[in-house]
Amino acid sequence: MGPCLSETELISRFFQFGIPDHWPTQGIGDDCAILEIGSTCLAVTTDTVAGGTHFLPDANPYTIGKKALAVNLSDLAAAGAVPRCFFLALSLPQADAVWLEAFSRGLSEEARAFACPLVGGDTTKTTQIGDVRAPFSITITAIGEAQKPLTRQGATVGDDIWVSGTPGDAYLALMLRTGQWRGECNNYLARAMDTPTPRVALGQFLSRHASACADISDGFLKDLGNILNRSKVGAEVYIDRLAVSDDLSKRSMNERRQAQLAGGDDYELVWTAPVCEREAIWDYARRRAQEGEAIALSRVGTITDSGLKLLDKNGCEIENSFFGFDHFAQ
Amino acid sequence: MGPCLSETELISRFFQFGIPDHWPTQGIGDDCAILEIGSTCLAVTTDTVAGGTHFLPDANPYTIGKKALAVNLSDLAAAGAVPRCFFLALSLPQADAVWLEAFSRGLSEEARAFACPLVGGDTTKTTQIGDVRAPFSITITAIGEAQKPLTRQGATVGDDIWVSGTPGDAYLALMLRTGQWRGECNNYLARAMDTPTPRVALGQFLSRHASACADISDGFLKDLGNILNRSKVGAEVYIDRLAVSDDLSKRSMNERRQAQLAGGDDYELVWTAPVCEREAIWDYARRRAQEGEAIALSRVGTITDSGLKLLDKNGCEIENSFFGFDHFAQ
Repeated sequence: MGPCLSETELISRFFQFGIPDHWPTQGIGDDCAILEIGSTCLAVTTDTVAGGTHFLPDANPYTIGKKALAVNLSDLAAAGAVPRCFFLALSLPQADAVWLEAFSRGLSEEARAFACPLVGGDTTKTTQIGDVRAPFSITITAIGEAQKPLTRQGATVGDDIWVSGTPGDAYLALMLRTGQWRGECNNYLARAMDTPTPRVALGQFLSRHASACADISDGFLKDLGNILNRSKVGAEVYIDRLAVSDDLSKRSMNERRQAQLAGGDDYELVWTAPVCEREAIWDYARRRAQEGEAIALSRVGTITDSGLKLLDKNGCEIENSFFGFDHFAQ
Repeated sequence: MGPCLSETELISRFFQFGIPDHWPTQGIGDDCAILEIGSTCLAVTTDTVAGGTHFLPDANPYTIGKKALAVNLSDLAAAGAVPRCFFLALSLPQADAVWLEAFSRGLSEEARAFACPLVGGDTTKTTQIGDVRAPFSITITAIGEAQKPLTRQGATVGDDIWVSGTPGDAYLALMLRTGQWRGECNNYLARAMDTPTPRVALGQFLSRHASACADISDGFLKDLGNILNRSKVGAEVYIDRLAVSDDLSKRSMNERRQAQLAGGDDYELVWTAPVCEREAIWDYARRRAQEGEAIALSRVGTITDSGLKLLDKNGCEIENSFFGFDHFAQ
């Protein structure tokens, strides 16, 4: 909600009602809420994406449909959950059949790829402002099932810190497309921004191996910070150990670090795991590569008692100018 | 979505993906989706309300908070479900603490009244359009538990048709406040529009007695029409048997019928029940009255083979000029 009031402050000031839970619930302020219903553990997430805020004005409705679901599936992945179904609340300026056809194609492809049926929803017109209607707004609520749900709580001193993928690519694409950084947005970067792959299979694997997990949709440092806050621990991070794409590796060190550490809109996972899990995690990466679905994994640091230290490849501490850590509780 | 494309058409043209359900699911196009998870039956609904579309510009944030949840609880009521928890996706033009304080007070009062905790959500800024940001938009997803869920399917020839409350009051309030009809909006009518009572207890009672149920948020005839469509039956309705408020009874017959039959924004229930349930239903109304929570119930007609016949108090058929029935499948 902008710098005046963070989402965390909003929730704690205005949205803690103290009403007792009927089902055992955890994970408020997490990627998902975890609800224990009988012997089933549900992970539920809700996310809004809107034209003009989350998408550039010329965004294509096919990718909008795909990504609107992908960002929610990424939350389920962070909870180690198997996607089971989703609900769609769609506000549109008009019922444009061409737009709807492409949107629904993107949405259904993503739904099919993750065997996640659409089971309910609501459609409304957006508000008229002067001569125009507000652009589309899409709220998806996705429900998954987790045998052993992951949350941001559970990181322990000595745990390794891991990240999937090559964080920063979506941000680099955004900077290039909006002309804020010099250069061309190639197909690889466009895909990173438009059609991210939610790490659903990785999340399910991690539910048996990780101690805490989050997706890095808000940027690596912010989402790692959420894990540190919730787990009441600190971290040492060797930032040059983050896997980096060819495109991002060619940028200046300043641009590269900004994109990798604070970029956001990447739907990769950051997680912590005991040292004894290293072999199992590398083994998972090898198996995925053998199956032709290679995924970069980076072990980037260690959980400490308190504080957040960023180190370069020589072990020299570097100042964190990429993200305000004021509200990281220690 | 306006006259060019109805919500039903939207769903059937663009949002039926044919992906197999993991959990047995019913009720698509209903007030709620019903998901069978182990031995638990969940009713899930999602609804968006937005400034400028669902609320007048001067609407008070306290009533916005209360009503945003009430409309979803009304969907749970129509499914005969007990509210269990809800998720809030809140898009705001800015994080205005005064607005948020009043909104959250209304929301939490409604949540507390129905023992329905807020367990997750998302906050975003609305899109900037020219110099202004789009007004607020609120999507709530509410989850309830139904031992014997009600849907719109199940009405049988010979069943009685019932309605709760005095439909049309919210519409009358809207017409008066916007100056489209002459007169003053008094406190009773303002409450009918601003702080409707979702019929949660009635819905739970009906889950053991009714054959089909819906709320009448889209207007009595449209929502009855949805039951007829889904149950593949018709109806004869004696429209003068609908309970009517003092305020609405003073309007012209034309205004009265428009408000009662097509008004919408009433969060009462319409249901069908076998004739043998009459005594139990009247008994429920008596008990509620004895408990100081009187609720008007009207038995207004009978389920038939096909078609929809509207009759006045003399049994003369009247032309239905209040709602287009084109797409009522017979």
